[in-house]
Amino acid sequence: MSAGTQAGRPRDPEVDERITRAAAELFGAHGWSGFSVDAVARRAGVGKASIYLRWPNKEALLVAALAGRLSGVKDIDTGSVRDDLVALARQVLNAFLGEDGGALLRLTVEAASVPAGQEHLDRFLQSQAAAARAIVRRGIERGQLGPDTSVTLLLDTISGGALNHALVAPARLRDQVAAGADRYAEELVDFVLRSVT
Amino acid sequence: MSAGTQAGRPRDPEVDERITRAAAELFGAHGWSGFSVDAVARRAGVGKASIYLRWPNKEALLVAALAGRLSGVKDIDTGSVRDDLVALARQVLNAFLGEDGGALLRLTVEAASVPAGQEHLDRFLQSQAAAARAIVRRGIERGQLGPDTSVTLLLDTISGGALNHALVAPARLRDQVAAGADRYAEELVDFVLRSVT
Repeated sequence: MSAGTQAGRPRDPEVDERITRAAAELFGAHGWSGFSVDAVARRAGVGKASIYLRWPNKEALLVAALAGRLSGVKDIDTGSVRDDLVALARQVLNAFLGEDGGALLRLTVEAASVPAGQEHLDRFLQSQAAAARAIVRRGIERGQLGPDTSVTLLLDTISGGALNHALVAPARLRDQVAAGADRYAEELVDFVLRSVT
Repeated sequence: MSAGTQAGRPRDPEVDERITRAAAELFGAHGWSGFSVDAVARRAGVGKASIYLRWPNKEALLVAALAGRLSGVKDIDTGSVRDDLVALARQVLNAFLGEDGGALLRLTVEAASVPAGQEHLDRFLQSQAAAARAIVRRGIERGQLGPDTSVTLLLDTISGGALNHALVAPARLRDQVAAGADRYAEELVDFVLRSVT
């Protein structure tokens, strides 16, 4: 009998979601050293048994929460290098300013000491790099970018610019910065594009 | 009688330095929740009494360590906007890749929950912003930059680019990335400058 059918009842996906969200929030706020099944249960408003029915220990719970919630960024092919880069910048901004942004930020600092942390972080970083490489390749093929455009510098300035923008926002202005993120992504990309076109 | 002259002996500045360095390292590695006078004493190789002679509690110890070691960046006026920006980028790279880089990175994530954390972080961020504003102002005065150059975008791409470059370096490549930081700062600035000149 699998955990999913324990006692003959199907697992409630809404409860799964509430638990993994609480796990990501707790990890973002207090890091791995403040992470416990007890604290996640309290934050999610469920009993500890509901967690242990799904995951054997706190390590497995955090791994599942990070794997399920930090999905990385996607390469979006809009036909225009500018719009592709805007889509990338928006995803990076949303990743850091959205509800799992605290967990992602925490992961960049604690990757080495968190279960499977380096793999989760690498997955995010590699998704960014893959998107940037594909955007630049298409831009060069369409003649919108010079053939020696540096993927590294484009990615560092766009992802890093988005990260810096999210980081310097004090907690009390976070919602306001998030509300302006779409507009900022365009300004950032137009600024950087002037250097490569 | 002040702590500095307790028992008639002057404080040994080498011991001060060893303690604050250990405090910054410990905070960088384990954050505030892993921070204790006991652990700092062990890491510094001193007795707990040597710490309590100088600071009344772990809060005061961390505040002193961060205040003394995270000095922010300086505006360096070289006469050239390019060289001013390279100097700024190098300071940001060194701040994150140097021996107190872990503490600075940790502070960006835990500022809200660390004693005086937000003040320390703001001091660092404001030193960056002040340097960028001064560099842009001089650049405009000398006619090297257009009069509507965005300080925010220049700072986000240069500081953020440097931060991203430092962040994506896995721990095992950190020394190698640090060794190439001076060269990278020039590439980054030349890339960004093409967009504003």
